[in-house]
Amino acid sequence: MLCLRSRTQDAWLQRAIGATRDILVDHAHCERKAATQALMLLGRFPDVTALVEPLLDLAREELEHFELVLALLQRRGWTMESLAPSGYQAQLHALCRKAMPGKLVDLLLVAALIEARSCERFKLLAEHHPDAELRDAFGGLLAAEARHHAVFVRLAGRFDDAEAVRVRLDDLASAEVAILESMPPLSRIHA
Amino acid sequence: MLCLRSRTQDAWLQRAIGATRDILVDHAHCERKAATQALMLLGRFPDVTALVEPLLDLAREELEHFELVLALLQRRGWTMESLAPSGYQAQLHALCRKAMPGKLVDLLLVAALIEARSCERFKLLAEHHPDAELRDAFGGLLAAEARHHAVFVRLAGRFDDAEAVRVRLDDLASAEVAILESMPPLSRIHA
Repeated sequence: MLCLRSRTQDAWLQRAIGATRDILVDHAHCERKAATQALMLLGRFPDVTALVEPLLDLAREELEHFELVLALLQRRGWTMESLAPSGYQAQLHALCRKAMPGKLVDLLLVAALIEARSCERFKLLAEHHPDAELRDAFGGLLAAEARHHAVFVRLAGRFDDAEAVRVRLDDLASAEVAILESMPPLSRIHA
Repeated sequence: MLCLRSRTQDAWLQRAIGATRDILVDHAHCERKAATQALMLLGRFPDVTALVEPLLDLAREELEHFELVLALLQRRGWTMESLAPSGYQAQLHALCRKAMPGKLVDLLLVAALIEARSCERFKLLAEHHPDAELRDAFGGLLAAEARHHAVFVRLAGRFDDAEAVRVRLDDLASAEVAILESMPPLSRIHA
């Protein structure tokens, strides 16, 4: 359903559980960046009216989740910190076509894949994390990520025919697996 | 009160009234960018806890105002469009010191000045624009810009002593006037 082309292995889950603070810090940044990027898409394509309402809704919701994750950190006495980009997102963006409408379709599908990978991994954390409050929080967030994934795929479908979008999503999903596999084992959602 | 070092001339007001659509399009982008930049500041200084709540509040409010300005455009049958950066903000950011804490103080003071200039010009539009709905809208927005200006100045005061912040704000305010005077007469809030 999420269109991912690989299943996350137990090694990631064990690493994530062992570095819960790092995973929360990373995820707070992910929510912040997702809100920022929804707004930046509206800045790059301000005349594409189909994007406005869904991306504003997304930005608002990502902002709420950013706050929620900051609160989870704070309650555990953990502080936020800067994180150098892992390269995951930059490598996905480098695959996006340069000319319209392919460019917009690809940016939306990349956003969909990032949400899908979060969703898949949050499901593991929601099922297996030893901290009950975090299991609940990840459970709530994974539902949102699944919904956002669907919003991005649906939006991409407004700018190309369904079969072309499906094929392109499949190609980008294969690339996403290769990018993940090439990365060092960081304690990040997307690594 | 706003610390600006020049008063906007009637020529700007006449240009703005004559190009209301352009001014609204520009202002929609300003609100969107203000939300984005609040989130980017939180990304650059995630461990500065004093910033978190004020900047989250700002991001939320700028997002609401972005929507409000989009609705004003839509009700008039006007569409959003891309705008090339005018250089105003980039020139202000180029003046920011590179080392902490001066870097953060300057970024906050530049944000304060941008809000102050919006506020000063919205006051003119709130008093003189021929469209009553727009007079009301600009009146509401100018109150928010004044508040945001004060938030940024107050935040800057957390990272240096009051006199140093006052002197630096004065210097940056003088630079802001020079930047505005060097710009071509675009139909923008900050031109």
